[in-house]
Amino acid sequence: MKIAQIAPLAESVPPKLYGGTERIVSYLTEELVAQGHDVTLFASGDSVTSAKLVPVTSMALRLNPHVKDPIPHHVILLEEVRRRADEFDALHFHIDLIHMPLVQDFIDRTVTTLHGRLDLPDLVPFYRAFPHHPLVSISDHQRLPMPPVNWAATIYHGLPTDLLRPRLGATEGYLAFLGRISPEKRPDRAIRIAARSGRKLRIAAKIDAVDRLYWESEIAPLVEQYPHVEFIGEINETQKAEFLGKADALLFPIDWPEPFGLVMIEAMACATPVIAFRCGSVPEIIQHGVSGFIVDSEDEAVEALRHLDDVNRAGVRAAFDARFTAQRMAADYVALYQDLRDARTASTQMRALRKEGAELQIV
Amino acid sequence: MKIAQIAPLAESVPPKLYGGTERIVSYLTEELVAQGHDVTLFASGDSVTSAKLVPVTSMALRLNPHVKDPIPHHVILLEEVRRRADEFDALHFHIDLIHMPLVQDFIDRTVTTLHGRLDLPDLVPFYRAFPHHPLVSISDHQRLPMPPVNWAATIYHGLPTDLLRPRLGATEGYLAFLGRISPEKRPDRAIRIAARSGRKLRIAAKIDAVDRLYWESEIAPLVEQYPHVEFIGEINETQKAEFLGKADALLFPIDWPEPFGLVMIEAMACATPVIAFRCGSVPEIIQHGVSGFIVDSEDEAVEALRHLDDVNRAGVRAAFDARFTAQRMAADYVALYQDLRDARTASTQMRALRKEGAELQIV
Repeated sequence: MKIAQIAPLAESVPPKLYGGTERIVSYLTEELVAQGHDVTLFASGDSVTSAKLVPVTSMALRLNPHVKDPIPHHVILLEEVRRRADEFDALHFHIDLIHMPLVQDFIDRTVTTLHGRLDLPDLVPFYRAFPHHPLVSISDHQRLPMPPVNWAATIYHGLPTDLLRPRLGATEGYLAFLGRISPEKRPDRAIRIAARSGRKLRIAAKIDAVDRLYWESEIAPLVEQYPHVEFIGEINETQKAEFLGKADALLFPIDWPEPFGLVMIEAMACATPVIAFRCGSVPEIIQHGVSGFIVDSEDEAVEALRHLDDVNRAGVRAAFDARFTAQRMAADYVALYQDLRDARTASTQMRALRKEGAELQIV
Repeated sequence: MKIAQIAPLAESVPPKLYGGTERIVSYLTEELVAQGHDVTLFASGDSVTSAKLVPVTSMALRLNPHVKDPIPHHVILLEEVRRRADEFDALHFHIDLIHMPLVQDFIDRTVTTLHGRLDLPDLVPFYRAFPHHPLVSISDHQRLPMPPVNWAATIYHGLPTDLLRPRLGATEGYLAFLGRISPEKRPDRAIRIAARSGRKLRIAAKIDAVDRLYWESEIAPLVEQYPHVEFIGEINETQKAEFLGKADALLFPIDWPEPFGLVMIEAMACATPVIAFRCGSVPEIIQHGVSGFIVDSEDEAVEALRHLDDVNRAGVRAAFDARFTAQRMAADYVALYQDLRDARTASTQMRALRKEGAELQIV
């Protein structure tokens, strides 16, 4: 099929540093090319892809000091897509919502994956205005705050199978916390759970400017107080395999409606079980007792860690291979693009039949 | 004519407090209705108009504490306009640029007034992508930083004739500074010019959060130092007539490419001459020696104030009446809408003739 992938311009595809959406767009795009599709990627000009790249800006916006306002650049992106829309069997948008009025002329070839949380008050009136736009959620839970819309599918994210290798041998006996230091990620819970379990905790996390005060007032004192906690700062993609793979478990003690939670499947790819709080997508991603444990409190997390040996690391990786590879993700999207095409064909035939019928009646 | 006015949603139309764009949209809309046109105003739901109001949001976004992100609301606005576009002879946008890819299907009935400064690096690649979109500048100077685009006209702003009454009698012997306390408005220049002229200065201005430091470090000390300077804070629309009308002159010592400068024509409506620095639109708005003086330095401003009596206050108001009324502004826009319609008619006839010609040839 001829497929357009339309990425945000904040980060390159794949991103140089952070950027969950751009990473997923990259994994999906490369996998679609590998599966033999003719893919065009609309993205920042410093993106790297085996698809045809339409470079909308010279470089990603977030790291470009000359860019003050991302909106004009995304409107240029829309104009590029509009001009070339007729070339594609499917146009797959990853840019939230700004394109929705524009695509009405080719809505039957359009699908939009919503990558973020949807429980924001500005979005309810918005999606009420677009009840027919085909949407993909990245977990069923993500849909909860939404008004009635046209959900085409839930398609879970996936990672290339060889991105993070499973580590089935001996681990190094620590718990891992990976992500951002922010109140909704609850690193404080991770620290207390590790302390009560008598286990080491390693925190690999970035601290955004907005979370600086939270770090200084709430978390840094705990890190200082507990000698079993080690804060190692930000790590890059290559360090991730080792950091996750050598851990006994990943702690994911979140306190917000996580729409997906990539780090859970990253741990699973490394064969590392996940102790996750029941929030957002967690019950859809983690199979309790197979890929880790789902808990409702710090007490339950401490208890779960006592049963960590019941979880087979090869089984964790098998759970990843069964549900969270990029192949599976791409196959799901291709099935959806084909559904759209079939619906178009059916509707064209229906119109032709009606017209024929009408002409016969006239005759 | 059937005319759509599409306003930003940040403020109501007219705005409750500040909002230059929304004030102009209001003046234009009311004047078009007064001139007998069928006008539809797309704006926030707390707008007040004699046109038909399409209330896109319940209230203006800037004053609504529940609104975190203005973009979804403006995309709803676009969808409302798209759905109803066929109803109008002319669609007049005041929302900068987000609509440009969407209007390609009715570009021959569309015009966009650019209300802001255009010397921003994000805008050059943007306007290169939209070379055919009909644009209105609010001064000729505003166009300078732009790449080649489709300028339809420069149309200066205008005010309702009875909004600010001319004050032809005795003034109260002070100079006025009206606007924001910010580095590019140069209140420091106003203070020094007044001091060197031996005249009182009254500053009516708001201080935005972003300018708080500038006020405290640069301007407040000057206000304290010079006993002839009085800072009276923010004033509302009704206080404006008195504040400007009782002044000997308005000081407009700006240091930035002002695209229009409403306060200059507000002073002129009050019959108050303007001492303005040669920046941005100033030479287009002020007629040197008639509606005030254009100067290049503080020395020249001090010198100009010595000749203030040469400026006839009735002549200042006459200059306003000749060029800066809402009637004149609306008439200019109607002429532009009619040009668009005439161009459409000509192009339709041309197509019909071509088709006829082609059919004749076939025969």
